[in-house]
Amino acid sequence: PPSQLPDGWSALPASAEPPGEVPASNDLTELGKQLFFEPRISLTGTVSCNSCHNVMEGGDDGRTTSMGVLGRTGTRNSPTVWNAAFMPTQFWDGRAVTLEEQAGGPMLASPEMGMSSHDLVVSRLRLVPGYVEAFRKTFGGDDPVSIENTTKAIAAFERTLITPGSRYDRYAAGETSALTQQEARGMQHFEQVGCASCHAAPLFGGEFNEFPTMADDLFVQRHRLTEDRGRELATGDEADRYRFKTPTLRNITLTAPYLHNGSAATLEETVRLMGAVQLGEDLDDAQVADLVAFLGSLEGPFPEIAIPHLPSRAGESILPAGDPESETGAAPRP
Amino acid sequence: PPSQLPDGWSALPASAEPPGEVPASNDLTELGKQLFFEPRISLTGTVSCNSCHNVMEGGDDGRTTSMGVLGRTGTRNSPTVWNAAFMPTQFWDGRAVTLEEQAGGPMLASPEMGMSSHDLVVSRLRLVPGYVEAFRKTFGGDDPVSIENTTKAIAAFERTLITPGSRYDRYAAGETSALTQQEARGMQHFEQVGCASCHAAPLFGGEFNEFPTMADDLFVQRHRLTEDRGRELATGDEADRYRFKTPTLRNITLTAPYLHNGSAATLEETVRLMGAVQLGEDLDDAQVADLVAFLGSLEGPFPEIAIPHLPSRAGESILPAGDPESETGAAPRP
Ligand code: HEC
Ligand code: HEC
Ligand code: HEC
Ligand code: HEC
Ligand SMILES: [Ca+2]
Ligand SMILES: [Ca+2]
Ligand SMILES: [Ca+2]
Ligand SMILES: [Mg+2]
Repeated sequence: PPSQLPDGWSALPASAEPPGEVPASNDLTELGKQLFFEPRISLTGTVSCNSCHNVMEGGDDGRTTSMGVLGRTGTRNSPTVWNAAFMPTQFWDGRAVTLEEQAGGPMLASPEMGMSSHDLVVSRLRLVPGYVEAFRKTFGGDDPVSIENTTKAIAAFERTLITPGSRYDRYAAGETSALTQQEARGMQHFEQVGCASCHAAPLFGGEFNEFPTMADDLFVQRHRLTEDRGRELATGDEADRYRFKTPTLRNITLTAPYLHNGSAATLEETVRLMGAVQLGEDLDDAQVADLVAFLGSLEGPFPEIAIPHLPSRAGESILPAGDPESETGAAPRP
Repeated sequence: PPSQLPDGWSALPASAEPPGEVPASNDLTELGKQLFFEPRISLTGTVSCNSCHNVMEGGDDGRTTSMGVLGRTGTRNSPTVWNAAFMPTQFWDGRAVTLEEQAGGPMLASPEMGMSSHDLVVSRLRLVPGYVEAFRKTFGGDDPVSIENTTKAIAAFERTLITPGSRYDRYAAGETSALTQQEARGMQHFEQVGCASCHAAPLFGGEFNEFPTMADDLFVQRHRLTEDRGRELATGDEADRYRFKTPTLRNITLTAPYLHNGSAATLEETVRLMGAVQLGEDLDDAQVADLVAFLGSLEGPFPEIAIPHLPSRAGESILPAGDPESETGAAPRP
């Protein structure tokens, strides 16, 4: 590694390993891609994983808080799916461990895909001969279309959503001209100011940390940082109050707005807030500019993805006709 | 052409010609693809052209009537964008002539993309350096990001959304084994029963026709076929009451539910209804089955499409924060 790379920093691995012994196969990831882009497994047939995690862009939705079926919104900002495969846990509060475990959640979340049960998801998929065939080919067995296999496939596709080879990674691999002087300076600040103590290379995130650390900072009130109790909601443990999973900073230039509640509009403001709220540091303009420049070197490149062909039931939609709320027994909008 | 091909029938052309002298270029269609998949030019940042015209599937949304921003619905079923490029007019009532003219509509339609003005669409695009650059490269000039250029690009992309080479087309080109016996039988019925008089090859649709023709048929009430006055809404001319643009039957197996109001759940039912309501014919089960089989031969193939990379404003979303309705001055939901 080049001499200027801070001690212990490294490049992103070129692949994300699946847990356990299930090997990723083309059939599996291809099916997972179909399901990731499949709006028909939402209440109204209009919302897919890609709606909130748009892999045509930063793997997010650009909104303050996400919007799912029927214009419903939740309280949290959509994290990027790019490189989620490298995350030790999932969600802002880490309440799911694996991608497989995570993927079942949004289908049932009222302000996301809004389905009333996993059985309903599976029963829609079973109506499509092309899906039944793809599940059979991928998983075998008598009853291959199940929620477990659905989430396995989605997770396998998500493991392809990784972005090694950013300019930072090329720098870390020895290509010293890959970073501008300003970016390299920002990299040094990032280590020296203390950002890297929570956002460690190569993912620049992934572990739990207290947030906010400086509870009386002015930013805390302005950004309503004590409304969401973070990991306490996942564990029930008061010691986890205001602890959050530290987000990856890869592709961070593409995933505004920032913070778990989307309350920080710009990256510049967020960097300044982090200095103040997490480190008690009042960063000066030049430091902020250098840090933001460095963060830009963590962008992409994104793999080429062919749009999937989503199979159909010939001559009949798999969506129920009429009012989706009454058709499926889902709760009315609060 | 093989001897069994009905007189005057032909295969779909291999390309769709742009109007006027504007030649399609790679830059133009690539930009149009980005814009077709771009949800950030909708009120809430959640709805793109592809939301209702999903080219990963039949170019439609599988819903009875479409659903746009904030769960709003309109009164009409989403027609496929596949082969819309070959249509002499656009919309069920033909109120737009060209694809260019059509493409400006949905951005402002309250139950579609819900934007308050084209200026707002353009102003969002101008915030993205990658878009400004792409418009400049494609159109040149001092002020290339305009609504005219936006719709030109979208239309150019739509002209790539065509599906020549279906099994029917191969049959029409002389490959007699491309159709099964049942499908070939259905093709003969289609000509002899009279379907082809309105749904003429090679598009199997495109012209205006009265609907329903038999106003007192039982189907008319059951499917509420006199609620929408059709082309009269576009022209203001009473003579156009209950005249509709005849939809293409290409990929019809993939675009259930059917009719302008989505009131017909299955293709089989729709064929039966067409016989009764348009021709005064009570088709028997075997005829219906043959016709449905023939219609299946009009499926695909779809071209391979790489997902576009949607450019971003670095470090800041182009979507307004907070409540979209109050932020943009759009009318509240009725
Ligand atoms: C309507 C919006 C919406 C939809 C649809 C949606 N998500 Fe999410 N996703 C979110 C939000 C918001 C969070 C953060 C929630 C939290 O932390 O409580 C999230 C979190 C995640 C995470 C965790 C990432 C991390 O780093 O912690 C993954 C992975 C993910 N979603 C994948 C998916 C998949 C797969 C689907 C489809 C099955 C999906 N999402 C559907 C909005 C959505
Ligand atoms: C004590 C741990 C800690 C330190 C030090 C720290 N961060 Fe963070 N950072 C976090 C946590 C936790 C979050 C998630 C905050 C939340 O839940 O909204 C975060 C969020 C961010 C975000 C927003 C990410 C997103 O997707 O919304 C950015 C950008 C960021 N940090 C950059 C920095 C920079 C630059 C520094 C140094 C100036 C820094 N951080 C220092 C823990 C830390
Ligand atoms: C929320 C749903 C929705 C969105 C978003 C939407 N459309 Fe449509 N589209 C429809 C419906 C419904 C119709 C039929 C409306 C009518 O006839 O009155 C239609 C009609 C069309 C037609 C006419 C096809 C034909 O054969 O007559 C084309 C072409 C089209 N849309 C392209 C687009 C483009 C391009 C965009 C994005 C700029 C877009 N649509 C956005 C629902 C939508
Ligand atoms: C007199 C003209 C006419 C004749 C004859 C006719 N159609 Fe149609 N067809 C139409 C029109 C107009 C529509 C659009 C109806 C609407 O507005 O909902 C239509 C719609 C359809 C649809 C639904 C398309 C969609 O996307 O929803 C199918 C399928 C269809 N016709 C098949 C047939 C078949 C099969 C026959 C012969 C049995 C036939 N049609 C005869 C004019 C005709
Ligand atoms: Ca974000
Ligand atoms: Ca469809
Ligand atoms: Ca339809
Ligand atoms: Mg983004």
